[in-house]
Parts: sequence; structure tokens; C-alpha cells
Amino acid sequence: MSRESTLPKAFVQTLRERFADRFQTGAAICAQHGSTTTWIENQPPDGVVFAENTAEVADIVGLCGEAGVPVIPFGAGSSLEGQLNAPRGGISVDLTRMDRILAVNAEDMDCVIQPGVTRSRLNDYLRDTGLFFPLDPGADATLGGMAATRASGTTAVLYGTMKDAVLSLEAVMPDGRVIRTGHRARKSAAGYDLTRLLVGSEGTLGIITELTVRLRGIPEAVSAARCSFPTVEDASNAVISGLQFGLPFARIELLDATTVKAVNAHSQLNLPETPLLLAEFHGTPDTVAELSVRFGDIAREHGATALDWTTDPQERTRLWKARHDLFWAVLGLRPGAKGISTDVCVPISRLAECIGAAAEKAQSLRLLAPIAGHVGDGNFHNLIVLDPENPAERAAAKSYIGWLNELALSMEGTCTGEHGVGQGKRSYMEREMGPALDVMAAIKAAIDPKNIMNPGKILPERFEAQS
Amino acid sequence: MSRESTLPKAFVQTLRERFADRFQTGAAICAQHGSTTTWIENQPPDGVVFAENTAEVADIVGLCGEAGVPVIPFGAGSSLEGQLNAPRGGISVDLTRMDRILAVNAEDMDCVIQPGVTRSRLNDYLRDTGLFFPLDPGADATLGGMAATRASGTTAVLYGTMKDAVLSLEAVMPDGRVIRTGHRARKSAAGYDLTRLLVGSEGTLGIITELTVRLRGIPEAVSAARCSFPTVEDASNAVISGLQFGLPFARIELLDATTVKAVNAHSQLNLPETPLLLAEFHGTPDTVAELSVRFGDIAREHGATALDWTTDPQERTRLWKARHDLFWAVLGLRPGAKGISTDVCVPISRLAECIGAAAEKAQSLRLLAPIAGHVGDGNFHNLIVLDPENPAERAAAKSYIGWLNELALSMEGTCTGEHGVGQGKRSYMEREMGPALDVMAAIKAAIDPKNIMNPGKILPERFEAQS
Repeated sequence: MSRESTLPKAFVQTLRERFADRFQTGAAICAQHGSTTTWIENQPPDGVVFAENTAEVADIVGLCGEAGVPVIPFGAGSSLEGQLNAPRGGISVDLTRMDRILAVNAEDMDCVIQPGVTRSRLNDYLRDTGLFFPLDPGADATLGGMAATRASGTTAVLYGTMKDAVLSLEAVMPDGRVIRTGHRARKSAAGYDLTRLLVGSEGTLGIITELTVRLRGIPEAVSAARCSFPTVEDASNAVISGLQFGLPFARIELLDATTVKAVNAHSQLNLPETPLLLAEFHGTPDTVAELSVRFGDIAREHGATALDWTTDPQERTRLWKARHDLFWAVLGLRPGAKGISTDVCVPISRLAECIGAAAEKAQSLRLLAPIAGHVGDGNFHNLIVLDPENPAERAAAKSYIGWLNELALSMEGTCTGEHGVGQGKRSYMEREMGPALDVMAAIKAAIDPKNIMNPGKILPERFEAQS
Repeated sequence: MSRESTLPKAFVQTLRERFADRFQTGAAICAQHGSTTTWIENQPPDGVVFAENTAEVADIVGLCGEAGVPVIPFGAGSSLEGQLNAPRGGISVDLTRMDRILAVNAEDMDCVIQPGVTRSRLNDYLRDTGLFFPLDPGADATLGGMAATRASGTTAVLYGTMKDAVLSLEAVMPDGRVIRTGHRARKSAAGYDLTRLLVGSEGTLGIITELTVRLRGIPEAVSAARCSFPTVEDASNAVISGLQFGLPFARIELLDATTVKAVNAHSQLNLPETPLLLAEFHGTPDTVAELSVRFGDIAREHGATALDWTTDPQERTRLWKARHDLFWAVLGLRPGAKGISTDVCVPISRLAECIGAAAEKAQSLRLLAPIAGHVGDGNFHNLIVLDPENPAERAAAKSYIGWLNELALSMEGTCTGEHGVGQGKRSYMEREMGPALDVMAAIKAAIDPKNIMNPGKILPERFEAQS
């Protein structure tokens, strides 16, 4: 079944002439280009165009603008808050064919890439240069999608988020014009920071068609430490102390006891089933050894038991693979169920309290909701395991997520540290941003007066009505 | 002589009733609140209000909005590109009395401060906490001013610029509304990045009335290395190699031979009068010792002579004091002359070429224009020493600055790495930003439709005419 009947006929005709079989309207392909990763209802676009270069993206956006048809950029499809859905229909611009690595400037430690390049492919490509792209959001997302959602992940505590990794962008704006937000200088004070405005704008202000991103030197040595703690609070306090001592964690991840249990079962490990910290340091062999010892001392002061560290790549990979397989491990706790990953971020001083309250709340709602977190940033994920066909469980999960976001905001935190707003977090924006939302809406209206760019995302509905 | 006659009478009356002697219109005080640091002509505001809290700032902005009077925020007065001038008159809002440190959250390594707090006062206040605010732009600027101009300085290579240091802001917007761009989470993916939009907006979009900024742990040990090189190119290559090896420079400064000569004379030092690198590492005693040795090895591979490093605080302070006094040292090369500091930033691979060409060009124009740079970022300053009363020298300097900016842009750089645009760099924005300028102008018009916030800055004149 094709969805194209909902689109203006002349518009369809033009797209077909222009893009031939790179314009698709089949139901399956459209559904696949809506949001598919969570319980958020799939709202497919009416058609998909596979773009091959910036001029084509500009063409599509221009045509959509003329016809008043929404445009939704698509990368790997791994976003988690409904960013890809088409509540008003429209055209999904699939950017996966724009996957060229245009330049690697080794001396400047940057590279210029198209938006469809994935994180893993970029790192494969870079391997011989001694450089790497350090951000690791878990999914093998495209760099364009990572920029659009301000992604981060396990290494953000050292290397920052996409706001830090992107030096400049090329983007197609809603009127079809192509802009460049900057060049290759490492820093600039030349006017408004359009780079950072587009990073995290989730396709609502423009479509990213080229990225210049910072690279890092592959560390000579990496050490990984794991230590178990009696309580989440002890683990949190160890991290706070480490940060205050200036330990440059490259990764510092917390798994609660339930998560550790799931990981043990899934990855055949024998970790003590109490809260666990996984730490990683990058540097020279001497430095990472010293840092691991120091972190060990700090961890012990905070009650750590079963302390262990390694620089053996195989051992390290095994540990981090277990961390990365965590979603599947947790699902294994309840075969046949589905998982929902939600995230909040709070000041680290409130993290233990926040996680403790969350665990209690989940228990009171009879929800299986283990916790894993990028604790160096105060950011954590709740992996809610549920039967999505069970209305009572759905209701409990919704109520829980709402409660958790409220809690994070009450602790001076944010409703999302890294997943973005999309559709799923729109309703929390009012409380979090207050009058700043009016400023966001003014920017959206100024840049996209016809509201064709990914409508129905980020800004609450009352702003949609105005446009 | 008072300037108030240029302001609407009723407006003056209201300000006088509301602020009494905290509203000043004397010529001296007005001149002091215009730009005073460079050869850019002083264009004083018509009046100055010394604000004491956010509500007062909102009042002033609201009143100015009603009366159509420009508003220019004022911190320490240390900006370099005419940011404080009032080409259309208006009210300077002096924020120096808003200098309270509202909260230090040691566990979260952040603090909440008013915009008038200066960098040195914040660090004095923090001393007993083991934390510090690492950015060091040279001048003892206010944090509000540093955020507004996206300042950085010698430590940006490790700690980033104000775009990285600011977690969130409170700001008074042009309609007098107070917004908060975020809270205290270390990272957030909740909507458009208004924090980064205000950072670097130079008072043209709103007035920053509160900042939440990241702090860092005072490093346990600091080592400083200095090494002399035969050429600027050798020095640049040593820095490139160091960065590629992942050396975490906390500072890495280049002085050209003329600058070294000036510094020797001014600070009674005996540095070899060839290009000099000053490096600094922060960490544990063992780490910084190891890093210094490694950097020494790299420097030697690139022809370094006269290599020396120290962890002795006095020795280190002496060296960095010499670096910080560089402006005065260079002025000492020509007693009675004035100095103009201009900055550009290029990809580091082009730095040696850029600096080499700049030195040649200055010589061909018979300009004394020594160079010092934050080379880890590809950012450098030209300190042009001239007699500002001599029209030929002024013309040569202007021509040189224009040429240098054009060169930086041709090397994929930017017309300003850290001084901002203000009035001085407006004319280069067209070439650097192209159609992105229209997006900046759309944002400016949407947020400040009456163009009352620091008009005549950042955006070229053709956008002013439209508003």
C-alpha cells in the first residue's frame, strides 16, 4: 500500500521526475523511516527520498516548502524519542547515501564528512591515521543524526558531547538555502553560534549536509577498572571524589545491582551483584597505571570491594562489550518483553538520591526498571522492561517516566541528557524551560516560518498551533 | 557636560526617579563606559545605570524598549573590538555591582554567580574549595563580559572557551522578560541551545544577569616548559606533534623573536631571542613530570634548543607573568606609542604559514607588529605598535588588519578566535559567514525586533538598515 495519495499530485510528479526510484512511497519503507525504536507509535512519512548530495537536499526542501509538505531528515533511525515520526505526514530525507568522508586533516585533528557516515565507519576509516572520533552513543548512529540530537554517550565525561565535537556544519535551511556555520578554526568568536544552534535542533531548523568534526589521538594506553560497591550512594561518592581530585575519567559508568545481575547472565560474567562502576583512563602507559591506582584508592575509601583493573585489550573489550550489550541483557530478565530506554540528567551531587528514589518508585509501581548511567555527567538511563500490549504496564511506565522527569527537574536537572526531546519529552519542556520556550519558538518561527522542518518535535503543541 | 539631552525627557525622568544617583549622565562617566581599549573611536552612551539586580536590569531594558533607546551591557570595559560603544547613543547598563557569588556547588564542580564577578575575584573566593575557574583571557574581565564575548585565552587548549565553561545562563531579553537557558545538569539535549546562542552574542540578544559555570579541580602539580626554536615553523610543528601524541597541554603559547626580545627587556629575562614556546601541564606530580619529558623529546625532534622545565611555582609564575605582561613589554619597544591587539584563528596546520606571511607583510608595511599566540588552538595575536596620531601608520595598520583577516579566511580560519566582532570585525563577517549571516539577522530580528540591544555590533550595516 502506498502513502503517496496524501501528497499533492504535482509535488509527487516532480519528485518522481527528479529522483526516479530514489523516491519511494511504499508502506514498508515509509514505516521503516518513522520512529521504530520504542513504544512511541510509528507515524510514517508519506514518502522517502534517498538524497545523494547537498544540492538534492536543497531541492527537496525547496519543493516541500513550496508545497507546504513537512520534511524529516533520516540517518540510522536509532533515535529514541520519536524524532523521526511524521505526525503531519511529509517526506523523509534519507541521508544514508551521503556517506563520503571528504577530508581528513590529520595535522589539525579534524575531518570533513557527509551526514550519513556512521560512527564505526568513520573510526574504521581513521584507523591508520592514529586518530579517532571518540563519541560513543551506543548505537552505530550517523554523525548527522548524532549532531542533530546532540548525542553523547559513555565517553562524554572526557571528550564532551556533539556540541563539543562539531567544529562547523553545512546545512540546508527551510527556504532551501545552503549555509555554512563556520570553517575549520578550532575556536571562533565570530557572531552567533549557529553551529551549536543546529546541534540538538533535531531537524526542526535545517538539515545537516556536512560536518567538520574534531578528532582525537588514539590513546597510547587504556586502562579499565571495575569496582563493586555496597550502595549506589557509595559508588556515586567515589565518582564525585575522583572528579574533584581531577581524575580524567574517559568513561565512568554505573550499573545498579539488577543490571549487573542481567549482565552476568547475558555475558557469562561473575561480577558481584551489587552496584558496579566501570572506569576507563586514556593516556600513556605510566599515566593510566597511576590513574587506576589513584582511582582504586579513592574507591576503597568509599567502600569499594572487588576492585580490579586491567590494560589488557581483550579483557577490557569483554567488559565494555558487556556494558554495551546491557540493553539486551536487561531484556533477557523477562523473555518476550520489550524495553524502553529513558534518560534524565541531574547534578552529580543529587545522583545517588535520584537513582535511589527512582528504584523505590519503580518497585512501588511493580516495574522492572534497572538503571545504568554515565555517572561522570550525572546522566542515567532507566531501562523499563514491559509487555507493551499490557495497558496496566504501559500506564505504570508512563506514570513512572513522568514522575522521573519531574524529579530530575526538581533537582536542577534536565528531562534529557542525551536522547533529545522529539515527541517523547515535549510535554516536559514547559516546566523545564519556562519563558525560554518563547525564545525557542521565536527562533523556530523566524527560521522556519512555514513550520515544514520536522514539525511536532521539541516545542510543545501550543506553539504548533500558532504557526 | 551631560549627554542626557539626547534622551527622551520622560525616559530620563523615569530613570532618575527609579535609580536616583545610580543613573549618571556626566560626560566622563559616559566616555568611560564606551570603548576605551583600542584605537576604535570612543562613542559614549548617553547615560549609565548601575544595576544591582536582575529585576532592575529587566526594568531598564523594558523602559528602553518602550522609549526605543539602545541598551549596552557593561562589565569590566576590557573588550577590544568596540563592543561597548554607543554609535546610536543609549544607556549603558553597568553590571559591576551585580558581583555576588550566589552558590558554590563543590560536589558538582560548578558555581552560580552574578555577571559582575571578575575572574580573579572568583578564583580568590574559591581558593579554599580546591576548585578554580580555569579560563584566563588576560584581562581581569567580568564573567558576564567573558560569556557575552565568548572569551577564552591561554588555557582554552585544555579547558575550552566560555562556550564550554558556561552551563546555563539567566538573561534579560529585549522585551524585558527574564529567561533561564538551562539548569545545573552537566549536559542536556532539551531543545535549542540558548546558552550557546547567548554566549558570544555580545549583548545584542539579551543581557546576561546570572551564570552557572563549570569549575575544575586545582591541579595537584603544574609543570611549565619553555623551549626555543630556530623558526616559527619548527615551533608550530612541535605543537602539532604534541597534540597528535595526545599531550594534554594546559597552555601552549608561542612568542615570536621580536616578542621575546621585548619580554627580555621588560621582565629582565635572558631568553634566547628566537621563537619561544611556553607549555604547561596540569596533573599529578608524576604525570606532569612525564608529560614535560615527553614534550621535551618532541620539541628536540623539531629542533628545539634551550629546553627547560620547572615545577617550581615561583619560577613558573615569573615566566607566565612575563607572558601576561607581554602587551606592556611590546609597547616598551617604542616608548610613547600605542598598541592594538588584533586576533585571528586558523587551522593549526596553516599557523606557521600564516604567521610567516603576517611577519613579512608587517615588515613590508614598516609596521612593528610582534606576534604571540595560543598556538594549541591556532589562535594568535598581532600587537601592532603605532603612533595613532600618525595617519600613515593608522592607514598601514588598517590595511594590515584587513589583509590578515582575509588571509585567515583564505586558510579556512576565522576573523576572530576570541576577541569577538563588535564594531572592529563587522566588515569581515560577510566574507566569513556568507548566507549564514541572513540566519543570524533573522534570529536578531526575531528576538530583538526593535534593535535596541547593543545596535551596530556583529551584523554588518546592511542588516541594520532593515531593522
